[in-house]
Amino acid sequence: MNIYDLDTPALLVDVDILERNLRKMAAITAETGTRVRPHSKVYKCIEIVRKQLELGAMGVTCSKLSEAEVLADHGIDNLLVANEVVGQPKIQRLIDLVRRVDVMVGVDHPLAVDALNAAATDASVRLPVLVDMDIGMKRNGIAPEDAAELVRKVVASRGLEFRGLMGYEGHLVSMPPGEEKTNAVNEALDRFSFVIDELKTDGIDVPIVSAGGTGDYQIAARHPAVTELQVGTYAVMDTLYGSFTPEFELATTILCTVTSRPCRERLILDVGRKAVNTALSTSTLKDRPTVEMKYTYAEHGAMTVDEDAPDLIPGVKVELVVPYACGTIHMYEQMHIVRDGEVVDIWPVVGRGKVQ
Amino acid sequence: MNIYDLDTPALLVDVDILERNLRKMAAITAETGTRVRPHSKVYKCIEIVRKQLELGAMGVTCSKLSEAEVLADHGIDNLLVANEVVGQPKIQRLIDLVRRVDVMVGVDHPLAVDALNAAATDASVRLPVLVDMDIGMKRNGIAPEDAAELVRKVVASRGLEFRGLMGYEGHLVSMPPGEEKTNAVNEALDRFSFVIDELKTDGIDVPIVSAGGTGDYQIAARHPAVTELQVGTYAVMDTLYGSFTPEFELATTILCTVTSRPCRERLILDVGRKAVNTALSTSTLKDRPTVEMKYTYAEHGAMTVDEDAPDLIPGVKVELVVPYACGTIHMYEQMHIVRDGEVVDIWPVVGRGKVQ
Repeated sequence: MNIYDLDTPALLVDVDILERNLRKMAAITAETGTRVRPHSKVYKCIEIVRKQLELGAMGVTCSKLSEAEVLADHGIDNLLVANEVVGQPKIQRLIDLVRRVDVMVGVDHPLAVDALNAAATDASVRLPVLVDMDIGMKRNGIAPEDAAELVRKVVASRGLEFRGLMGYEGHLVSMPPGEEKTNAVNEALDRFSFVIDELKTDGIDVPIVSAGGTGDYQIAARHPAVTELQVGTYAVMDTLYGSFTPEFELATTILCTVTSRPCRERLILDVGRKAVNTALSTSTLKDRPTVEMKYTYAEHGAMTVDEDAPDLIPGVKVELVVPYACGTIHMYEQMHIVRDGEVVDIWPVVGRGKVQ
Repeated sequence: MNIYDLDTPALLVDVDILERNLRKMAAITAETGTRVRPHSKVYKCIEIVRKQLELGAMGVTCSKLSEAEVLADHGIDNLLVANEVVGQPKIQRLIDLVRRVDVMVGVDHPLAVDALNAAATDASVRLPVLVDMDIGMKRNGIAPEDAAELVRKVVASRGLEFRGLMGYEGHLVSMPPGEEKTNAVNEALDRFSFVIDELKTDGIDVPIVSAGGTGDYQIAARHPAVTELQVGTYAVMDTLYGSFTPEFELATTILCTVTSRPCRERLILDVGRKAVNTALSTSTLKDRPTVEMKYTYAEHGAMTVDEDAPDLIPGVKVELVVPYACGTIHMYEQMHIVRDGEVVDIWPVVGRGKVQ
């Protein structure tokens, strides 16, 4: 089926571009020795995860426990929930999951250590954890100066297995490439090194340091403390990440229909906030940089047209480049896999709606 | 079940508040004689629609054809797709639907009139349409000066049944209430009157003029041209609309868990961009105006804390007021219906994902 026979809006992923992106990341990690645990929250798709594992990924990262459950249901092992899992009934679900697969979770607070430890001890399991550090993003994560003490608490908790550290320098990934970015990212990641050195004096080994993202993988892969990267967007890409990692190609578009052309300067697409997320970046039509997303309404997308474009009339189908993949793909039930303009497969977005 | 026994994030709707909001709108329309065709895209929920119909709503508005199909599947009739339906296979789906229920669609371009007319004529049905006018929002809709000509084209199309005009003064609804807003909204709605007068000289009657929203229903309900209101958000409400229609109460919250409390000034919730839309408004915790949404990440919500709040520690469940209901509810599979803190029902968000 040709893509233009699909009803719209429909999410398209070019499989040749996807595979080139995956191979490019695999090459970098093969060169540096740092492993990849790709962050599946961006695309929530088993078929992409399987391709990453075939290319050497050593496991999978996700953000929510329910995403990890879906991965486990599909036979994927070696999981990291790169987030805190707190409160009942989530801790019970985590214990059920750790009986099925190897799954680690982040912990960044003494109360959370106590709660996880109590539940694991009661259930006679050992929960693998990473201590989650704030390495400058000022989001979640324990302050670096308090991290070693939290690690010692984890090590002393017989229901828990200390596996290492995690953190995300998300405040730096959008810097333009260059020396300034390299220095800033390395300085953030050095916070892991200080904690590792401090723990060494206690005889505590830190097998895993999980950090980095598509926006700074080149730097994080070369940092001595980092053992694995949580890169996600590189696989499918979007205009946001394209602006600072142009070496990855845009694989993802939304097939839309022009529903209105009120005047020469403006056209309306059938894709609004419920089908595309423009919170972090804008977008243009594929191969038409002069037709730019001006505003998204709940159910309409308004494009400004900087040319005559007499072909863009109601009923015509066009491809919109995805501005922000992580905020967009989760709104679709499936991705249409495309090669040379033909739909060659349909992959479900199995993690759709898995926010718990 | 108490709400605090729910896993999170979970969408909560207080049914007593909902019903007060519905009755308040019904009272205004009873007073002014203007009918309500509530816009179900905001909540996509049959149970709310049924309550609105019981209180005198004369039909239902939606934005996408797939939403209308879901409404029809649940036995709801008298539908308006307040949007353009263009392109195959959507026109074929529309023809299938018009054989089942009374459904009108917007049309704003001569090419769209031709396409709808050709399909309807081929199928031996008559498609009811409203001519969609741009009354100042500069989104979709035909320019007022061209509207009468498009109406004449519709009237001359034997596959189409001209039912009236529609438009949305969405650029004005967020103005603070007062004389300036009243004048601006009336001026926008007067554009309908001019077209109605022009058509009168041709002997063309305009039975329906559909316009207005929660943000200006008081003005639109009193405008002589308007016959029905497309109000949606008033039922469930959010902080965005609460700022300019305080007479409706906030019925909708998201039950969240505090996943991290990195420092006194900041806490992290398990609700990010995939579970709440903060594009148009921010939010606070319910009954805690000093704990404010500072930033949403893909899977985390960061709140700033302007008090000690020693109770807000990892594992604690809290209610986040919904900042923008139309952009948020569609991300949930169901709404938990609450009375006095107890879950009394679960209503599916049947229109979830219906973007085609």
